[in-house]
Amino acid sequence: MFNYRSEDLSPEEIEREREVAGGLAQSTRELVDAVVRSTVEHEELAAVRAEIDALTSRLRASQLDGSYGVTVGGDGSMRNWGNSVIGVRNPIAPPLLIERSEQGRAWADFTLGAAYEGPPGLVHGGVSALILDQICGEAAAAGGSPGMTGRLTLSYRRGTPLGPLHAEGAIVKVEGVKTYVEGHIGDADGPTVHAEGVFILPRWARERADGPKQESFE
Amino acid sequence: MFNYRSEDLSPEEIEREREVAGGLAQSTRELVDAVVRSTVEHEELAAVRAEIDALTSRLRASQLDGSYGVTVGGDGSMRNWGNSVIGVRNPIAPPLLIERSEQGRAWADFTLGAAYEGPPGLVHGGVSALILDQICGEAAAAGGSPGMTGRLTLSYRRGTPLGPLHAEGAIVKVEGVKTYVEGHIGDADGPTVHAEGVFILPRWARERADGPKQESFE
Repeated sequence: MFNYRSEDLSPEEIEREREVAGGLAQSTRELVDAVVRSTVEHEELAAVRAEIDALTSRLRASQLDGSYGVTVGGDGSMRNWGNSVIGVRNPIAPPLLIERSEQGRAWADFTLGAAYEGPPGLVHGGVSALILDQICGEAAAAGGSPGMTGRLTLSYRRGTPLGPLHAEGAIVKVEGVKTYVEGHIGDADGPTVHAEGVFILPRWARERADGPKQESFE
Repeated sequence: MFNYRSEDLSPEEIEREREVAGGLAQSTRELVDAVVRSTVEHEELAAVRAEIDALTSRLRASQLDGSYGVTVGGDGSMRNWGNSVIGVRNPIAPPLLIERSEQGRAWADFTLGAAYEGPPGLVHGGVSALILDQICGEAAAAGGSPGMTGRLTLSYRRGTPLGPLHAEGAIVKVEGVKTYVEGHIGDADGPTVHAEGVFILPRWARERADGPKQESFE
């Protein structure tokens, strides 16, 4: 079911990979923003499109069969660089650079532009949910009780403006395989969306047999 | 606060815009997928990056100051083509082509690839939330009681595999300015994530004074 690939890369080679492939993703994020906002003539849009198709072909000359999954480096480090929120190789990801504390907190400061719009001028409500799912899940993991999302409730207080934003999450309690996390996203004026999440350690990931038996993430 | 632009375009010109600018966005989606999955050499990645930067500059020769917002055509039709889920000009959007019924239902069939990954091989839990927020909001609007998201609860039953998926939402009740919607996303084996949403007509959008006064979306 899961896609883990091993690569015999040294830490230095991984950093080089981050620089080159991550740089390509960063440039592609800029392109995505320009595609949304460009007002150049149709002929020019069509000409740029043809060049993009040619670049895609060059990148596809050698590629993974499926998604990026998780790559395990020679030093055992794991990279989920395809992740939609934090993936340094994924142009859809802002990407968030998430800080974590062992006390079960996670937070990030970041900027969302035109590609993340819902209502005019505002962050899509679902994009706030996407970011809060990741942040709250990382808070659970940071505190030593990781899990997949079982339930997530978002409460929208006011619109979230496109621009510089902050998001954070913190564990509020742990009960067996369930970790309860609260968090929010907001701007300089304070929180705009609150989140409450329950993260559950999947059965296949439980190393000890003393936890409750549970097949579902619900 | 909101970004509405008027353009004196005929329906035929809007279709041409959809074809050209939407085609550019579609090609950029393919590029995004290739950036995540490419395994070509570093030199080639760097060369492609330089060409992408040049294309971005060409598109930015003339562009909107901010996000796309909503464009109102000469026939009064509205286009939110920058939307992160349905925006035909937004390479981040899959995009979903959502069908609606006046009975307050909305649904879509679509495919999610490598750019939407969370756990290896699975759709990011937050991406499912993003899509369900849009689908449930469209169900509310389709039934004649639109609103911005006030609350959204996601219940994760099992992992959602990358690949062909279906999502739908339907109004369950309407109370004043609040519309209650339920929905789910899933694969051929059935639902993977359930959603319950409350959508609230913002005060500024209320044409009549007989609804409850409410400043917040909560």
